Amino acid sequence: MPGRGFSDLGYARVDTHRERRQGLPEVVYAPGKAVEEIVGIVQVLLDRSNGPVLVTRIEPDVAEAIRNRVTGAHTDADAGILFWRPAEPRPFRVAIVTAGTSDGRVAHEAAAVAKAIGLDVRLYRDVGVAGIHRLLAEADAIAEADTVIVVAGMEGALASAVGGLVACPVIAVPTSTGYGAALEGLTALLAMLTSCAAGLTVVNIDSGFGAAMAAHRLAHAATRERP
Amino acid sequence: MPGRGFSDLGYARVDTHRERRQGLPEVVYAPGKAVEEIVGIVQVLLDRSNGPVLVTRIEPDVAEAIRNRVTGAHTDADAGILFWRPAEPRPFRVAIVTAGTSDGRVAHEAAAVAKAIGLDVRLYRDVGVAGIHRLLAEADAIAEADTVIVVAGMEGALASAVGGLVACPVIAVPTSTGYGAALEGLTALLAMLTSCAAGLTVVNIDSGFGAAMAAHRLAHAATRERP
Amino acid sequence: MPGRGFSDLGYARVDTHRERRQGLPEVVYAPGKAVEEIVGIVQVLLDRSNGPVLVTRIEPDVAEAIRNRVTGAHTDADAGILFWRPAEPRPFRVAIVTAGTSDGRVAHEAAAVAKAIGLDVRLYRDVGVAGIHRLLAEADAIAEADTVIVVAGMEGALASAVGGLVACPVIAVPTSTGYGAALEGLTALLAMLTSCAAGLTVVNIDSGFGAAMAAHRLAHAATRERP
Amino acid sequence: MPGRGFSDLGYARVDTHRERRQGLPEVVYAPGKAVEEIVGIVQVLLDRSNGPVLVTRIEPDVAEAIRNRVTGAHTDADAGILFWRPAEPRPFRVAIVTAGTSDGRVAHEAAAVAKAIGLDVRLYRDVGVAGIHRLLAEADAIAEADTVIVVAGMEGALASAVGGLVACPVIAVPTSTGYGAALEGLTALLAMLTSCAAGLTVVNIDSGFGAAMAAHRLAHAATRERP
Amino acid sequence: MPGRGFSDLGYARVDTHRERRQGLPEVVYAPGKAVEEIVGIVQVLLDRSNGPVLVTRIEPDVAEAIRNRVTGAHTDADAGILFWRPAEPRPFRVAIVTAGTSDGRVAHEAAAVAKAIGLDVRLYRDVGVAGIHRLLAEADAIAEADTVIVVAGMEGALASAVGGLVACPVIAVPTSTGYGAALEGLTALLAMLTSCAAGLTVVNIDSGFGAAMAAHRLAHAATRERP
Amino acid sequence: MPGRGFSDLGYARVDTHRERRQGLPEVVYAPGKAVEEIVGIVQVLLDRSNGPVLVTRIEPDVAEAIRNRVTGAHTDADAGILFWRPAEPRPFRVAIVTAGTSDGRVAHEAAAVAKAIGLDVRLYRDVGVAGIHRLLAEADAIAEADTVIVVAGMEGALASAVGGLVACPVIAVPTSTGYGAALEGLTALLAMLTSCAAGLTVVNIDSGFGAAMAAHRLAHAATRERP
Amino acid sequence: MPGRGFSDLGYARVDTHRERRQGLPEVVYAPGKAVEEIVGIVQVLLDRSNGPVLVTRIEPDVAEAIRNRVTGAHTDADAGILFWRPAEPRPFRVAIVTAGTSDGRVAHEAAAVAKAIGLDVRLYRDVGVAGIHRLLAEADAIAEADTVIVVAGMEGALASAVGGLVACPVIAVPTSTGYGAALEGLTALLAMLTSCAAGLTVVNIDSGFGAAMAAHRLAHAATRERP
Amino acid sequence: MPGRGFSDLGYARVDTHRERRQGLPEVVYAPGKAVEEIVGIVQVLLDRSNGPVLVTRIEPDVAEAIRNRVTGAHTDADAGILFWRPAEPRPFRVAIVTAGTSDGRVAHEAAAVAKAIGLDVRLYRDVGVAGIHRLLAEADAIAEADTVIVVAGMEGALASAVGGLVACPVIAVPTSTGYGAALEGLTALLAMLTSCAAGLTVVNIDSGFGAAMAAHRLAHAATRERP
Repeated sequence: MPGRGFSDLGYARVDTHRERRQGLPEVVYAPGKAVEEIVGIVQVLLDRSNGPVLVTRIEPDVAEAIRNRVTGAHTDADAGILFWRPAEPRPFRVAIVTAGTSDGRVAHEAAAVAKAIGLDVRLYRDVGVAGIHRLLAEADAIAEADTVIVVAGMEGALASAVGGLVACPVIAVPTSTGYGAALEGLTALLAMLTSCAAGLTVVNIDSGFGAAMAAHRLAHAATRERP
Repeated sequence: MPGRGFSDLGYARVDTHRERRQGLPEVVYAPGKAVEEIVGIVQVLLDRSNGPVLVTRIEPDVAEAIRNRVTGAHTDADAGILFWRPAEPRPFRVAIVTAGTSDGRVAHEAAAVAKAIGLDVRLYRDVGVAGIHRLLAEADAIAEADTVIVVAGMEGALASAVGGLVACPVIAVPTSTGYGAALEGLTALLAMLTSCAAGLTVVNIDSGFGAAMAAHRLAHAATRERP
Repeated sequence: MPGRGFSDLGYARVDTHRERRQGLPEVVYAPGKAVEEIVGIVQVLLDRSNGPVLVTRIEPDVAEAIRNRVTGAHTDADAGILFWRPAEPRPFRVAIVTAGTSDGRVAHEAAAVAKAIGLDVRLYRDVGVAGIHRLLAEADAIAEADTVIVVAGMEGALASAVGGLVACPVIAVPTSTGYGAALEGLTALLAMLTSCAAGLTVVNIDSGFGAAMAAHRLAHAATRERP
Repeated sequence: MPGRGFSDLGYARVDTHRERRQGLPEVVYAPGKAVEEIVGIVQVLLDRSNGPVLVTRIEPDVAEAIRNRVTGAHTDADAGILFWRPAEPRPFRVAIVTAGTSDGRVAHEAAAVAKAIGLDVRLYRDVGVAGIHRLLAEADAIAEADTVIVVAGMEGALASAVGGLVACPVIAVPTSTGYGAALEGLTALLAMLTSCAAGLTVVNIDSGFGAAMAAHRLAHAATRERP
Repeated sequence: MPGRGFSDLGYARVDTHRERRQGLPEVVYAPGKAVEEIVGIVQVLLDRSNGPVLVTRIEPDVAEAIRNRVTGAHTDADAGILFWRPAEPRPFRVAIVTAGTSDGRVAHEAAAVAKAIGLDVRLYRDVGVAGIHRLLAEADAIAEADTVIVVAGMEGALASAVGGLVACPVIAVPTSTGYGAALEGLTALLAMLTSCAAGLTVVNIDSGFGAAMAAHRLAHAATRERP
Repeated sequence: MPGRGFSDLGYARVDTHRERRQGLPEVVYAPGKAVEEIVGIVQVLLDRSNGPVLVTRIEPDVAEAIRNRVTGAHTDADAGILFWRPAEPRPFRVAIVTAGTSDGRVAHEAAAVAKAIGLDVRLYRDVGVAGIHRLLAEADAIAEADTVIVVAGMEGALASAVGGLVACPVIAVPTSTGYGAALEGLTALLAMLTSCAAGLTVVNIDSGFGAAMAAHRLAHAATRERP
Repeated sequence: MPGRGFSDLGYARVDTHRERRQGLPEVVYAPGKAVEEIVGIVQVLLDRSNGPVLVTRIEPDVAEAIRNRVTGAHTDADAGILFWRPAEPRPFRVAIVTAGTSDGRVAHEAAAVAKAIGLDVRLYRDVGVAGIHRLLAEADAIAEADTVIVVAGMEGALASAVGGLVACPVIAVPTSTGYGAALEGLTALLAMLTSCAAGLTVVNIDSGFGAAMAAHRLAHAATRERP
Repeated sequence: MPGRGFSDLGYARVDTHRERRQGLPEVVYAPGKAVEEIVGIVQVLLDRSNGPVLVTRIEPDVAEAIRNRVTGAHTDADAGILFWRPAEPRPFRVAIVTAGTSDGRVAHEAAAVAKAIGLDVRLYRDVGVAGIHRLLAEADAIAEADTVIVVAGMEGALASAVGGLVACPVIAVPTSTGYGAALEGLTALLAMLTSCAAGLTVVNIDSGFGAAMAAHRLAHAATRERP
C-alpha cells in the first residue's frame, strides 16, 4: 500500500505522501472525529513520516484521552493544539500582530502551530488602529519579520495599516470578535479582501491554523535552494 | 392651508414647517421627479420659507431646464447640486477627509451641501491608511474641526484611524468605490459600523448629502443658546 | 514608557494617551478577557488617567470578582456596567427614546454609560410608531435635548419619526429585538441607514455603548471653547 | 377542450377557469412575451371569459402594436397597463398612500389595475413620516377606506405609521426607491414584514399589481353574500 | 391622562386608544418582559378597555405566575397564549391550512389568537403539495372560508397552490421548518412573496400572531356597515 | 377513505397513494413530531402499504420509545434511522464518496436510507482533493457504480473532481462541515451548483436522505421495463 | 500528445479524453471566448472525437462567423446553440415542463442540447401551479418520461408539484424570471433545494444546459449494459 | 515637502515614500480618475522614485491620451496596463494557472503586472478539474515555481487541487466568471477561503493586480539578505 501514497483506515485515508509533497505531514482537525479515530490517524502519521504531527481544535478531555494512548505528546492548551515531534527551529521570523486582547485565541492557534513546525514567532498584541501610536511604536520591529500575520476582528482595519507599513508578505486573519454588524467575522473578512494596502492575502475567519500553514509555505519557498 | 404645515401640489406635499422644526427647508432629491415637479416644489419652498433651497443628485440637462424656469439658481456641477439663497457662513468647521481620489464625487456632494447651508468646509483628500503618514501629517489640522466627515470606500479603514485621532464627532460615509468583495459599498458600511474607534456614527452608502445634513444638526445643536 | 503613550501589559497595550486625545480614558470591553486581565487594565487606567474608568458587557460574577480586587467600583447591573470615578455632571442633555419595552437592555447600556461620563440623561420608553400619539405627546420635551438617542428593533421606524420632529443630532441604535425577517437587528440597521428623515446617523446593532460615546463626542464639541 | 379548463396555445396554456374560480380572468405579464404571444392570449381571454382583461408592465411600442391588432383596448401609459372591458365600479374603497413622489410609478400600477377591475381608488401621495403632520392631516380620510395600500421605499416606515392609525386591512408594497443600504427594495420589504403595527401584510417589491390583486380578493370576500 | 390616549407605567406606555382605533386592545408580546411588567400592562388593559386581552409567546412558568396574579385568565399552552375576556364568536370563517405536521406550532398560535378574538377557525393540517390530492380533496371546503391562512415552511409551495384554488384573501405565513437552504424560514418567505398566484400577501416568519391580526383587520372591514 | 388516497389522523394526512405513485411509502421526518404522532403515522403506513417504512433524524430515546410500541423495527443509530420491512436488494450500485472523516454523519444517513430501500451501497471515505491521488486510486471502482453520491463540506471541490472522472449521474450533497466562510454549508452548496463538471445535480445541505431518495428515483427509472 | 488526453492550443487545453470517459465530447461555453478560439477548439473536437460537438450561449453574429469557418454546423437560434454531428436518437424520453411562458428561453436551451445529444424531448409549457389543473391534465403523460426537467422561476413551486406526481428522476432548473424578492433566481433555487417532494435534484440558475447534461448522465446509466 | 513623504497635488497625495518602505512606487488605479489627474500622479512618481510606475484598469482611449502626454510608456492592452520603467528581471518564478479560457482577462492582469515588476512568469491555462489529467500533466512544472497564482471562477475548485500538489505559496484569485449561483465571484471567493488544502491565501475577486502584488511581497522576502 505504500506505493499508493495513503493508508486506508476505513474511517480515514491518511495521506502519507503529504510530507514528501509539501514538507509537512497531514495535520489532523479534531472536531467530528472520535478519540479512536484520532489515535489511529496519529499513529499512522508517526509511523510513516518524520516531521511534526499535529492535532488542532482539540478539547481538553479529548486531548487527555489521546495523550494516554500515544506517548510523547506536547500540549498547548490555550491554542487547543496537541503535537508530537516538534520541528527544529528554522531562521524564519513570523510576527503575529493582533488588534485587541479578544483576538488572542486565534493568535494563540497561529503561534502554537507556527512554533510546532519550527518557525520563529514574535507576538505583538493589542495594537489596534484606535490608538495608532501603539502600532507605530512597534512598526520597525514588525517590519524585520519574514512575514506578518495580522489577526483582527470587528472592522479589521489593522490589516490595512500594517500592510502599508511593511514590505514583506502579510497574511490577514479575520476573527469573529465583535457583534451585530460584525456578522461573526464576515465584515472583517470582506474588509481585509478589499484593503487599500496592495498585496495583502487573506485566510478563513478564525483560522490561525491556516495562517500558520501559509507561513509554512512561505518559509519553505524562502529557504529552499535557489539557482 | 398654512395652518396644516404643508402645501399639497398633488404630486407632492411640500413640508412648509420643516424650516421651523429643523432650521432648514426641505431638500429636494431629483431622481424620479419631472422638471415640472421639481420647479413646482422649489417655488413653494422659495415662497414659504427663508433659508437655502437645494436640489440634489440632479443631471446637468435637468439642472439647466430648471435654471431657465426659476431665477437665482446656483450650480455645483461636480456635486450635482442646484441651490437658491445660500446661507450666511456660520463659524462651524467641517473637515471632510477622503481615503482616495475616487471617493471625490461623494466628498463633493457633502462639501457642496455643507457650504450651501453655511458651514465652513475644509477638504483633506487622499489620506488613506495605506500611507498612514499622510493622515498623521494632517491630524492636528483635522482635530481642530467641529466635526469630521470621513469618506471612504473599499474597506473603509480610514474612519477608524481618524476616529482614534480626534475627539470631535466623526460621521463616516461609506462609498461604493471598489469591486468584488467591496459589494458596492456594503463592506465599507459594515466595517465602519464595527469600528474599534468608539463613538463613530455612520450614514448611508455614497450619501454625502446625509453626512452634510448630520453636520447641520450638529451645528444647530452646538450653536444654539445654552443655559 | 510614558513617552510612548501606552502601557504594555503583554496581553494588552493600554492606550494612556486616550484621555488627552479624546477627553475620556479607554473603555474596557469585558467579553473574552479574564478577570486578571480586566483588573490589570483598570488599574493602569486608574493610575495613569483622571477621568471615569468603565468596563462594559460584564457578567455579574466577573463584576463581583473585580469589585473585590479594585476598590471604589460602582455597578449598574441592568446595564452590565462597572465603573470608577464617575464624571461630574455636564449640562448636556441626552434624550433616550425607545420603541418598545423589549429594547430596554440596550437603552440601559446607553443611559448608564452616558451618566457615568457626566451627561444629563432623560429616558422616554415605549413610544413606538404603532401608537404615534405616545411619541407626539412627548415630542416637545424630546426636542429640547441636545441630542437624541433612538433605540428600536424590528423595523426601526421610530428613528424616522423622531428624526422628522427634532432639529438636534439623532443617533439611531438598531436592536436585535424581533424575530424572523428582523434578522437579529440587520433589518432595523438597514432601515435606519435609509431613513427618509435627513441627517440621522447610525451605530452598530445593540450598541448602547456606541451611542453614548457618540453623544460624548457631541458634548465635547458643543461645550468646548469656540472663537 | 373547455372541459379541461384551459386553452393550449403551445407557448401558453391559458387558464380559462380562472374567472370562475377567482372572479377575474388571468392577467398577462408582458415581459418576456412576444407581441404575437400576447395577442393570442388576450384573444382567448376575451373570447372565453366576461370580465376585464389586463396586460401589465408593457412597453409603449408593444402596447401600440397590440392595440393595432386587438380592438377595444384602453391604455394607462404611466402605469404600463393595457386593458379591455374595464369592470363596473364596485363600492369598495381603496386608499393608496405613498411615502414620496418617487414611489409614484408603483402607485400608478396599483391604481390603474384597481380601477380597471372596478375598485374605488383614492390616492394620497407624499405623506412620508419625515413630516408626520402630512399623514395625520389625512388620517381620518384614509381610515374610511375599505383597505389601504401603502407604497414606500427606503426604510418603509410609512407602513407602520399607517398601520397604527387605521383598523382596516393594510397591504404594504415596498419599492426599490433609494440607494445603497436600501438594497433595491429589500430593506423596505424586511422592515414592513417586521412592523411593530400588528396585522400588516406585504407583497413583493414594486408590485403595485400584487397589491391591487390582494385588494380584489378583499373586495370579493367583503362583498359576497354572507349568511 | 385619559386624554392622552395612553397610560405611562414607566417601563411601558400602554396604548389605551388602540381598541377605539382598531377594534382590539393592544396585544402583549411576552419575551423580554418581566412578570411584574406583564401584570401591570394587563391590568391597565383590563381596566381601560372592554375587548379581549392577550399575551403571546409566553413560557409556561411565566404564564402560571401571571395567572396567580390576575384572575380570569384562559390558557392555550400549545400556542403559548394567555388571554382574558375572549370575544363573542363572529360569523367570519378563517381556514388555517398547514403544509406539514411540523408547522403545527405556528398554526396553533394563529388559531388560538383568532379564536380568542372571536373568529370562526377551521384547521386543515398536513396538505402539502408533495401529495397534492390531499389538498384537492379539501379545496371546496377551504374555498368557503372568508379568508385562508397558509402556514408552510421549507419551500412554501402550498401558498401558491392554495392561492390558485380560492378567491378569498390568502395570508401566507412562512415557517422556520426545514434545514440548510431553508435558511430558517427566509426561503419560504421569499418564495411566498414571489408566488405565481396573484394577490397573496405575506407576514413575518413564524408569525401566527401576525396572520391572525391580519384576519382581524379583514373581519373588521368585511363586517362593518357598508353604505 | 381509501378512495381519497390518504388517511386523516388529524395531526397528519398520511399519503397512502405514495407507494403507488412513486414506488415507496411516505418517509417520516421525526423532528417536531411527538412519539404518539410518529407511532400513528407508522402504523398507517405499515397497514396500508407494502414497502419499507422509514423514520429519519430520530433521537435515540424517541427511537427506543417507538420500538417499544411498534414491533419489527430496525435501527441504524449512527444514521438516526428507524425502519421496518427493508426492501429486497436491487442490483443498482450507489457509490457514496466523502471528502473528509467529518462528513461521515451525512454519508451514514445516505447509506442507511439507500440500503433500507434495497440499493447496493459502496462507501469511499476521505478522498478529498487535497490529496487527489487518494481519489484517483479509487476512480475506476467508483466509475462502475450506477450513480455516485458525493458528500463534501467546506469548499465542496470533490464534487467537481468526481464529476469529471465518471460518466454516471452524480448527486452532490453539501455538508455543514467547516467554519467561518463555509457559512454552515452554503459555500459548498453554491460551489457544487456552479461546478465546472457538467451535469452534476445537487440536493439540500446535509441531506443524505435527499440524495438517497434521488438515487431511488434513478434506480426506479433505470430498472423499469423499457420498450 | 494523444497519450496526454488533451490538446494544448495555448488559450485552451481541449480535453480529448472526455468522450471516452463520459460518452460526450467537451461542450464549448461561448461567452468570453473569441471567434478564433471557438473555431480552434471546435476543430480539435471534430478531429479527435466522434460524437456531437456543441457551442452554447452563442450570440447570433458570433454563430454566423463560426458557421462561415467550420462547415456542417446546425443552429438553434432561440436556444443560442451551434452544433455539429448531432447524435443518433436514443429511446430515452425527457419531459421538459415549464411554469410560465417567460421561462421559455431556458427550456429552449435544455431542449436543444438534449436533442442534439440524441434524447427524445417532449415539451409541456406554462403549467404553473396557479392553475394546477393544467398540470394535472398532463400528469400521466409526464409520468411516462424517463426523466423530467422542471423549469420555473419566481417561487419555483412547480418543481414540488411535479416531484409529488412522478416516480422518475426530477431535475429542477430555477430561472431568473421574476423581480424583487425573486432575487434573480436565488429564491427559486433555494425553494427547489428545500422542496417537500423527496428526491428532487437541482442545477444552477438558468442552466438549461446543466439539466440536459444531467439527463445525458441518466440516459447513459439507464441504457448501459447491466449484469 | 520631501520630508513629509508625500506630494500634495490637491486631488491626490502621492505617497513618495512607498518605494522606500515597500520596494515599489505607488501603483495608480485608473477608474474614477481624470486624464489630467493620472498624468499628474505619474509624473510625480517618475520624478521622485526609481522603480517601475504602473497604471491599472485603464481604458484604451485614456491610455492613448496619457501616452501622448508622458513619454516612455509601455502598454499591455489585453491586461489594461500602462507602465514606465519596467523592472529588471528577477529570478523569482511565478506560475499563473487558470481554470478556464474565460478567466484569461484576470490572468492577463496578474501576468502583466508581475512582468512589469520583474518577476519570471509562466502561464498554464485551462487546466480546470473537470479534466484533472490536464493539471496532473503539468503538476511537476508548476511545482517548480516559487509561488503559484491560481485564477478560477465558478466553484474555484482548481485552487484546492493545486494547493494539494505543490509546497510553495498559493495565491488564489477568484473570478467573476460564471452565472447564477456563481454570484459574480463570491462563490469562488468563499470556496477558496474554505479550501481543504491547507495554507492557501486569497485575494479579492478579479484582482489579478492584488495577486501580482502579493507575489511581489513574496519575492521581496525570499530574495532579501538573510542572516
